[in-house]
Amino acid sequence: MNEKEISQAVIRRLPRYYRYLGELLESNVERISSNELSAKMHVTASQIRQDLNNFGGFGQQGYGYNVKYLYEEIGKILGLDKDHNFIVVGVGHFGQAIANYQNFENMGFKLTGLFDVDPSLSGVKIRNIPVMMMDELPGFLKKNKVDVAALTVPKSQAQSTAKVLIDNGIKNIWNFALTDLDGFSGVTVENVHLSDSLMQLSYLSK
Amino acid sequence: MNEKEISQAVIRRLPRYYRYLGELLESNVERISSNELSAKMHVTASQIRQDLNNFGGFGQQGYGYNVKYLYEEIGKILGLDKDHNFIVVGVGHFGQAIANYQNFENMGFKLTGLFDVDPSLSGVKIRNIPVMMMDELPGFLKKNKVDVAALTVPKSQAQSTAKVLIDNGIKNIWNFALTDLDGFSGVTVENVHLSDSLMQLSYLSK
Repeated sequence: MNEKEISQAVIRRLPRYYRYLGELLESNVERISSNELSAKMHVTASQIRQDLNNFGGFGQQGYGYNVKYLYEEIGKILGLDKDHNFIVVGVGHFGQAIANYQNFENMGFKLTGLFDVDPSLSGVKIRNIPVMMMDELPGFLKKNKVDVAALTVPKSQAQSTAKVLIDNGIKNIWNFALTDLDGFSGVTVENVHLSDSLMQLSYLSK
Repeated sequence: MNEKEISQAVIRRLPRYYRYLGELLESNVERISSNELSAKMHVTASQIRQDLNNFGGFGQQGYGYNVKYLYEEIGKILGLDKDHNFIVVGVGHFGQAIANYQNFENMGFKLTGLFDVDPSLSGVKIRNIPVMMMDELPGFLKKNKVDVAALTVPKSQAQSTAKVLIDNGIKNIWNFALTDLDGFSGVTVENVHLSDSLMQLSYLSK
């Protein structure tokens, strides 16, 4: 089956499969049935079978899934078998936290650049990468392949900063800037809204 | 209609409505039609009408929605008309970023405590709140009403730390610890997995 036809909903579940299988691997679990995976993930077993059939199955009737194989195959589907270079644009508290997140590197996302507009941050190192100024960004992107830019600037700067990134060849933006980015074509934007989950918590805890 | 019957899908969209309406308010927009809101939100106009009908409508045929009224009403539905106290448990890079996020305070979430196990952090202040040690947590929770705990400890500590929080009366956990929390009843847990969105970006950018 053509991967392009896979629904958004399946794709949104894949990272969860990947995480759970990773935890099973860490606990040295070798095989798991769709029923066991179902109980862990709060997804029905038939949903799991259906999801994984999108990618050719991986399971064997009555025998369960090989955890390591399934983990690696889903990793490949997600593109995690390749390394990705990423930069952080906006080195405030949140940008620093993203830059310091070891887990992203474990997933193959390698921090290669940090950019800000604040001259007092120029040259400050995080994980041995010096912060550069935004006017150095175009030159940096000419010389270095960058797969993803994490956008951690204030909301008011998000749209204009994204334009600079895209004008200089960035194709994938991981957007934490508290506003959805609009009007860019040929670019993948993943908007992360931490406050949305806080609002849901507020609703659910009423 | 009983709010309890509202589907998860609607509830997941409410924070987005709230954000968009907030941006419209900031731009001094007074009224908006469901068609305009639809174009901005990439949700069909009929979906919007249907969603808002869950809460009694708010709109008037041919007249559109009053932005300020709708913003405030959705805020009330989300429980954002009340103040919430929250603490941050785990004051690493990410915990510090959460503690420093002014936007949460604008939404009525007031930071009232910071906790960690690292003695070198004891008394260090973030936004004028001193970091306390974990053994001070039970006493703190006895004296202070805390609505939400943001859990920003390493994955390996997540389950045990959550247990301490819950044993001491915490009912709502905003979990950033890279693992889903399991097996707690009567407690609302909102799991945030930043790496999931990064994996989706990896997939979509293949």
